[in-house]
Amino acid sequence: MAKRKMILDLDTGIDDSLAIAYAVGAPDVDLIGIMSSYGNVLVDQAADNSLRILELLGATDVPVFVGEPHSSTTEHFDVMAISQQIHGKNGIGEVALPKPKRAVETQSAVDFLIDAAHKYGSDLTLVPTGPLTNLAAALKKAPEIATEIGNVTIMGGALTVPGNVSHFAEANINQDAEAANAVFTSPIHLTMVGLDVTLRTLLTTTETKSWRDLQTTAGEKFADIVDYYIDAYKVTSPHLHGCALHDPLAVGVAIDPSFVTTFDLNMFVQAEGEDYGRTIGDPARLKEPTNVKVAINVDQDRYLQAFMDNLTGLFKKY
Amino acid sequence: MAKRKMILDLDTGIDDSLAIAYAVGAPDVDLIGIMSSYGNVLVDQAADNSLRILELLGATDVPVFVGEPHSSTTEHFDVMAISQQIHGKNGIGEVALPKPKRAVETQSAVDFLIDAAHKYGSDLTLVPTGPLTNLAAALKKAPEIATEIGNVTIMGGALTVPGNVSHFAEANINQDAEAANAVFTSPIHLTMVGLDVTLRTLLTTTETKSWRDLQTTAGEKFADIVDYYIDAYKVTSPHLHGCALHDPLAVGVAIDPSFVTTFDLNMFVQAEGEDYGRTIGDPARLKEPTNVKVAINVDQDRYLQAFMDNLTGLFKKY
Repeated sequence: MAKRKMILDLDTGIDDSLAIAYAVGAPDVDLIGIMSSYGNVLVDQAADNSLRILELLGATDVPVFVGEPHSSTTEHFDVMAISQQIHGKNGIGEVALPKPKRAVETQSAVDFLIDAAHKYGSDLTLVPTGPLTNLAAALKKAPEIATEIGNVTIMGGALTVPGNVSHFAEANINQDAEAANAVFTSPIHLTMVGLDVTLRTLLTTTETKSWRDLQTTAGEKFADIVDYYIDAYKVTSPHLHGCALHDPLAVGVAIDPSFVTTFDLNMFVQAEGEDYGRTIGDPARLKEPTNVKVAINVDQDRYLQAFMDNLTGLFKKY
Repeated sequence: MAKRKMILDLDTGIDDSLAIAYAVGAPDVDLIGIMSSYGNVLVDQAADNSLRILELLGATDVPVFVGEPHSSTTEHFDVMAISQQIHGKNGIGEVALPKPKRAVETQSAVDFLIDAAHKYGSDLTLVPTGPLTNLAAALKKAPEIATEIGNVTIMGGALTVPGNVSHFAEANINQDAEAANAVFTSPIHLTMVGLDVTLRTLLTTTETKSWRDLQTTAGEKFADIVDYYIDAYKVTSPHLHGCALHDPLAVGVAIDPSFVTTFDLNMFVQAEGEDYGRTIGDPARLKEPTNVKVAINVDQDRYLQAFMDNLTGLFKKY
């Protein structure tokens, strides 16, 4: 079987780093590029972090493209204090990784995505785990890609549980609800892996300790990075008893949708008012053909096993 | 097979009237009583309307019990203008039905429910289609009924779509979010039939015309009553192209759960702030055993067929 072509769109970020590891370690994935986004960190930092993580994992052949630096409706972006608290100021838990040998590409992330959609079509899998600004910009520039890309699986949104930056909004969607609404209401077919399932999929220090015990650079660095995240969760979400595997779950679902149970729904994203950033069903389109599959439950035990098998196998090598 | 014992708890109301008809017409249901609630109308009007509808349908053996007159946190209730617009000032589309021969019972609705739970236990099906004030009061007075009643199927709430009195709140829950939260977070097992599915289950004048064409009193009166409701929907929800079968869908699901697809979730009801009345998953209890089944999709064609077979058969006789 040919490997699937995959592009990640990341605001790298600790769980984004786990998403990179999941994609690099997956035997049936050809990671053809990483786009960078703003969110957990600034867009350039996200690209730099992606390069560092890729080098840590021996994946120096993967190009990184810089994306939009701020939301579609603003001229500037500042990292929120809560993001720094969860991911560290450098985005990877204040862990120092070597300056990357590879540089970012000169092509923009948006143009890279459009070219890849044209080239690979239904063989292409796109996994955005940050704001949907890059994807919305690509859809605006080249609307035809909505029906070209084979698989779009996003980490973002919350349907059956409250948000994590307000009662309504999940952090990625909250960065650019207008862009998210443009994506959700476009002809694109997407799977939404939101807080509904990522809050059910937790990692603890038991798992990070097993990486540390590998006594490899990758195992130790990832244990350090993720322990920072677990410590932050103890403060921000003590009821969870672990840290949420937001972004790597989206990569896992993109590869094997059977990890989750989905619900077909036409949705919109509230882009104004008190419920800014809410991802919710559109009552006016309940009886029309649907374009969104919302993950509402997850086989967390099977996913966690696959996640650990994949990442532990990878960390052993580097 | 023994008929199932059913109690309806209604703020009667046009779709509540359809719920009565569904229960009276269902061959496998023994409707042992109707509790009244405030909401679409005042609590005494609701009881009176239930008696009138029961008489119209030849069900004069069904006792009606008056419930709580206002929410658990207020001392007074006034019908909202929007309720009067949708249901008419008399609650049944300004249609005149004869003064009922039967009077309301002297026992309170809450005590009737507690006694019935003790008497029938798992054989009892309760279908509240108004505020959950009566049920919460019964649970407070006799907590043991939470695990005695066999089947609690409510019309209320909205999980995957916005509310209908605010972006967050469905009308029944909005009347008494505190009571609803007490019910949702009690040990009671319940099925939530909310706007998620009732907005997918619509009736049009094609169906009411078929009732009118029966040339029976019940057929004509119900056609008049429901046409009022359909006209109101043309103003309040023109995108739906029909009126929602909120309350009778809950009765249908109570009898045959296979009409809907459900999602198991531990929920709470927001009882303060801007999202007052929101029914949403509790992130702190995502991994615990669940007590709520939320209906998120419905086989609307099969349900509508069953609804029409049932009601048309009943209306033919009266």
